[in-house]
Amino acid sequence: LNEAVPLEPEMRRAGEFDLIAELRRMAGPSADARHLVGIGDDAAVTLPGGATATSIDALVDGVHFRSAWCPPRAVGHKAMATALSDLAAMGAEPGEAYVWLGRPHGLDDAGCLELAEGLIDVARRHGAALLGGDLTMAPALSVCVTAVGHAARAEDLVGRAGAGAGDVLCVTGELGSAAAGLALLEDPGLAGRVGEAADAAVARQLEPEPRSLAGPALARAGASALIDVSDGLGADAAQLAAASGVEITIELERVPVGPGVAEVAAAGSIERVELLGGGEDYELLCALPPAAVEAARAAVRQTGTELTEIGAVGAGSGVVIRDAEGGSYPLGGHDHRAR
Amino acid sequence: LNEAVPLEPEMRRAGEFDLIAELRRMAGPSADARHLVGIGDDAAVTLPGGATATSIDALVDGVHFRSAWCPPRAVGHKAMATALSDLAAMGAEPGEAYVWLGRPHGLDDAGCLELAEGLIDVARRHGAALLGGDLTMAPALSVCVTAVGHAARAEDLVGRAGAGAGDVLCVTGELGSAAAGLALLEDPGLAGRVGEAADAAVARQLEPEPRSLAGPALARAGASALIDVSDGLGADAAQLAAASGVEITIELERVPVGPGVAEVAAAGSIERVELLGGGEDYELLCALPPAAVEAARAAVRQTGTELTEIGAVGAGSGVVIRDAEGGSYPLGGHDHRAR
Repeated sequence: LNEAVPLEPEMRRAGEFDLIAELRRMAGPSADARHLVGIGDDAAVTLPGGATATSIDALVDGVHFRSAWCPPRAVGHKAMATALSDLAAMGAEPGEAYVWLGRPHGLDDAGCLELAEGLIDVARRHGAALLGGDLTMAPALSVCVTAVGHAARAEDLVGRAGAGAGDVLCVTGELGSAAAGLALLEDPGLAGRVGEAADAAVARQLEPEPRSLAGPALARAGASALIDVSDGLGADAAQLAAASGVEITIELERVPVGPGVAEVAAAGSIERVELLGGGEDYELLCALPPAAVEAARAAVRQTGTELTEIGAVGAGSGVVIRDAEGGSYPLGGHDHRAR
Repeated sequence: LNEAVPLEPEMRRAGEFDLIAELRRMAGPSADARHLVGIGDDAAVTLPGGATATSIDALVDGVHFRSAWCPPRAVGHKAMATALSDLAAMGAEPGEAYVWLGRPHGLDDAGCLELAEGLIDVARRHGAALLGGDLTMAPALSVCVTAVGHAARAEDLVGRAGAGAGDVLCVTGELGSAAAGLALLEDPGLAGRVGEAADAAVARQLEPEPRSLAGPALARAGASALIDVSDGLGADAAQLAAASGVEITIELERVPVGPGVAEVAAAGSIERVELLGGGEDYELLCALPPAAVEAARAAVRQTGTELTEIGAVGAGSGVVIRDAEGGSYPLGGHDHRAR
């Protein structure tokens, strides 16, 4: 934004009335009886009952994605998915979402509506209602989502801190595809060398699906600690280990490998472990007492994915990643904070 | 942000562990028994009870302020104040706040901590706890705050839609100083011509105080509709009129004029009505049945400010602003959407 442009109140809000009205129409009235007032007043009004889990996350062009390869609908999809993933990682049921959209001059009304479609589609499919929003100008496309989830009692929610020595470490779904997708999007030449396998990986990067059903299922099945794989397997395992005061050992060959990972690693001369630890898969990593594993696996299967045992929880601290030959790897996840 | 910089996971989070730990220490544990889990897990956990009011707002450098004249502490102060003002405008008691901080390369760790001090100081003084946050890089300093307020019952909250013909229109405090402050900050030459009166106006622009006590007091006193003066007196009155299906008449000479407004108008050759309608004062505009006015005035005085009758609610639609000679003004508030 140009310093010469005066700060006028009309810049603070970045939408004509008809765009705001259209966004409000798209969000629609919520069918949830706990939602008394949605978009359009100073604040939304709800009757939450029970316990709530609340998380705030933002995506920014040039930091988390590039608008050059991430269409507005995918930006909205991913922003809502990452916010809802935090609720799944607590074992909470999705309830409400509140969104700020920072709109650059280059995003027209149609782009705003496409972005809102992505947001609202994901919210609706996962049982969350968009109850509030703010729309202003911003130098780069930015979306901030606050998601609120629910549980009957606080005891039904599972944080990061409950893992104990002897627990089994499990993960839902498969890892690495989101990082493979990012590599493909950042290097179009690589996509040409990878061929068909590229599509699935790119889809996982652009439009991840939060584990909204598996999270509460794992909580009910007795998970002792739960976190989503956002920063990267190693980094997130380190968070869980630190919060629980335990050591986590991950057997690399047991980590389920997502579509496109092998092909991108081969075509791009990238270590497979880098992709597996690259994050943004939004799968759930959990610690389970051994007696709870079978029931948890069955419950997760009911939600349409698999639960795989990938390691163990022991006394100590930190994370060890071992390959089949007993070699030890750095954490992966690229997160220098966690090294 | 440079397109040539790869999108690496470490860019997604913009803080070293020790900065995150320091921010968490500053936020502190909440003394509120309803706050079970704060910063540090995938989501905060609360036991809200009753009804909640939730609002999301963002401030962006170059859109809502300029870092050239708005120090980090004031950015944090104003971001939290504007969010809490939405709760006051529902008559809700402040409860929890969740913050995303988008950090440009130019803002160092000390600047982040100063900004957090501003956020946390306002939250704490108004009874809200900072329970969650996200810190990432962003091309321009950006702060998004979701604020959650509470009331025992949904019926205790007051929206924009309840004003009826015959109601009296009132406003807390004084208007225009925030716009006068903005004019001063945007034109340092003007400040030199205004002298001492500039300080109070600049303070109201940089560090407004939400009416966290007056909002619930007005709700208890029987306000039929309530909104905060953020976009501008005329624009916000128009929102209230449209939501309630009424016409609002404002008597310009009755609008309480804040410090510095007369001086800035004179020195800057700015119409006083432009400043009065310039918004960002975060006072409360409310409709009250005539029988409720005296009690409301007394209740608001107990909170440390005055309630002034500035107009009337009648049948019809839209807003009319009249001066002492019967002349009619455009709305003010600079908001072309509302014209």
